[in-house]
Amino acid sequence: MRAATLTSPRNVLVTDVADPVLGGPGEAIVEVVAACICGSDLWPYRGIHPTAPGQRLGHEFVGIVREVGADVRTLSAGQFVVAPFSWSDGTCPACLEGVTVGCDNAGSWGQPGSDGGQGQFVRVPFADGTLVGLDEHPDPGLMPALLTLSDVMATGHHAAVSAGVRPGSTVVVVGDGAVGLCGVLAARRLGAERVIALSSYPQRQAIARAFGASEVVAARGREAVAAVRELTGGRGAPHVLECVGTQEALETAIHSARRGGSVGFVGVPHVTDAKVVTALFSRSLGLRGGGAWVRTYLPELLADVLAGTLDPSAVFDLELPLEAAAEGYAAMDERRAVKVLLRP
Amino acid sequence: MRAATLTSPRNVLVTDVADPVLGGPGEAIVEVVAACICGSDLWPYRGIHPTAPGQRLGHEFVGIVREVGADVRTLSAGQFVVAPFSWSDGTCPACLEGVTVGCDNAGSWGQPGSDGGQGQFVRVPFADGTLVGLDEHPDPGLMPALLTLSDVMATGHHAAVSAGVRPGSTVVVVGDGAVGLCGVLAARRLGAERVIALSSYPQRQAIARAFGASEVVAARGREAVAAVRELTGGRGAPHVLECVGTQEALETAIHSARRGGSVGFVGVPHVTDAKVVTALFSRSLGLRGGGAWVRTYLPELLADVLAGTLDPSAVFDLELPLEAAAEGYAAMDERRAVKVLLRP
Repeated sequence: MRAATLTSPRNVLVTDVADPVLGGPGEAIVEVVAACICGSDLWPYRGIHPTAPGQRLGHEFVGIVREVGADVRTLSAGQFVVAPFSWSDGTCPACLEGVTVGCDNAGSWGQPGSDGGQGQFVRVPFADGTLVGLDEHPDPGLMPALLTLSDVMATGHHAAVSAGVRPGSTVVVVGDGAVGLCGVLAARRLGAERVIALSSYPQRQAIARAFGASEVVAARGREAVAAVRELTGGRGAPHVLECVGTQEALETAIHSARRGGSVGFVGVPHVTDAKVVTALFSRSLGLRGGGAWVRTYLPELLADVLAGTLDPSAVFDLELPLEAAAEGYAAMDERRAVKVLLRP
Repeated sequence: MRAATLTSPRNVLVTDVADPVLGGPGEAIVEVVAACICGSDLWPYRGIHPTAPGQRLGHEFVGIVREVGADVRTLSAGQFVVAPFSWSDGTCPACLEGVTVGCDNAGSWGQPGSDGGQGQFVRVPFADGTLVGLDEHPDPGLMPALLTLSDVMATGHHAAVSAGVRPGSTVVVVGDGAVGLCGVLAARRLGAERVIALSSYPQRQAIARAFGASEVVAARGREAVAAVRELTGGRGAPHVLECVGTQEALETAIHSARRGGSVGFVGVPHVTDAKVVTALFSRSLGLRGGGAWVRTYLPELLADVLAGTLDPSAVFDLELPLEAAAEGYAAMDERRAVKVLLRP
């Protein structure tokens, strides 16, 4: 089969790799219908997260089950499925509590020993605990929206849930990537009355507004904090979503939150200065987040997508064939695209 | 009047200072009946937090109102009061939300321009928003228990509330100072079924057990984490109280918590390595805490002390006259005493 690989930093090569085979009776093979490139895929692409030459790429995909092991109970060949960005056994204590990202047997696509989502087929460990199957094949037009459930929409939802967003909330969203934009949508979906999005890019501002942002602050860092304070009676917002992961973004989030408020953080932290801990303490803030519990949230979000009440598909602004994956990475790296959809 | 002052690191001098006078119509003068020394008083004592020579000391006290300004509505001369470790106006948005430590006009005793708790009298700004008065003078035997409400018991309660402790919870408490010990008591009071206390000192272990600890781990750092994991099916506890503030203590707390759990942190953070943020992220943990919202919790905790159902007084193991404050500091510095009560 064909799959995207990273031969060296900034060199994405779509090449022939071995077809996957079932590794055990609880596994499944999925033929990928659509995959995409994540902001976090840019860390290895840029060489910041070292990888072995030839590393597979991608952790977001939807597709059709082609083969299941003898122990698979909930899925069958021919069924359409959405895959979370990590697999989970569905039976360990963490999974039973809904913390599927912290599964005792968790792992993620595109790591050594596993297939990446950006390929024609994927071998799925713990298929029952991982994949969510649909009763029937979805309308092709729903494909982009369904694909966001694999990571970015579920992650935006996790940020909003972690920040305690509820009906009537005032929310600030730090980050205008696909996750931040989905965070806006998630906050509104949970009933937020007012969502202040931070973005300096007109195209992303437009998506934020389409997703329900009531105000857009075209600034970052201290300027953004000052603008948020100005918009919130000098106090900051009770709920802040941090969807970037840098030191600056986390500081912006913390100082945009009102005393006693909550910060939901889902950007993989690249934080170097521990003063953020002191700031959380002195501002009486809560911090919660981490990798999204995608498998737990999927049924609920999927139902809304299928019902037509949730549509995050606008985060995709470029669609390419899998063979052009290198161009997709370049477009995201250069911020020419928010998020790229790939079709094998 | 007489008051404890810090002339230089490790030199506590009880000396004559000016009698306080009302600074405005909302203020009160309180005659101190009992005060105490806090673990956090040791930071300036040890010279780690620089202070001006002659700085007043102490932020915990109970006493009798001697004078009130014309605008004071809820208190009158002769009334017995408990003072939180910081004052609060009671009217700003933060106070109205219960985040009294984050009051727009917050300040704490013993800072430049204010009296310390370790003295004969204290001028209290925002008396209505700060002090909690009792209907009648309490039994003298209740004095130590009432005094803990000024800080350590309220702070232990804040740690437990911030960690989401509820009936049936399993809880780990990191720190065997007065706050950690009160954290054990607070967790049990909130219904925790199982409280694992970390302490290597037999005397403190005994207090922890008397306060309701079901298990004591006589280790710290990685060894403590391993022991906690062993006691919790390899997973860690869903609720952890961090009552120290050092890098090691916060790391111990984070790695003692199970994935998806909550850490309540009330030890003033002296954290230098931002890897704790990554650990919170990768373990899906919540972190919340900061200075306790003492004024908010006081009525509830006070009712229990007066009813005889809450008695944290065992944290005091040394009582001295105010004039011997220097000996009290030395005893706490050398860990000869858990907490020292001072009587003017």
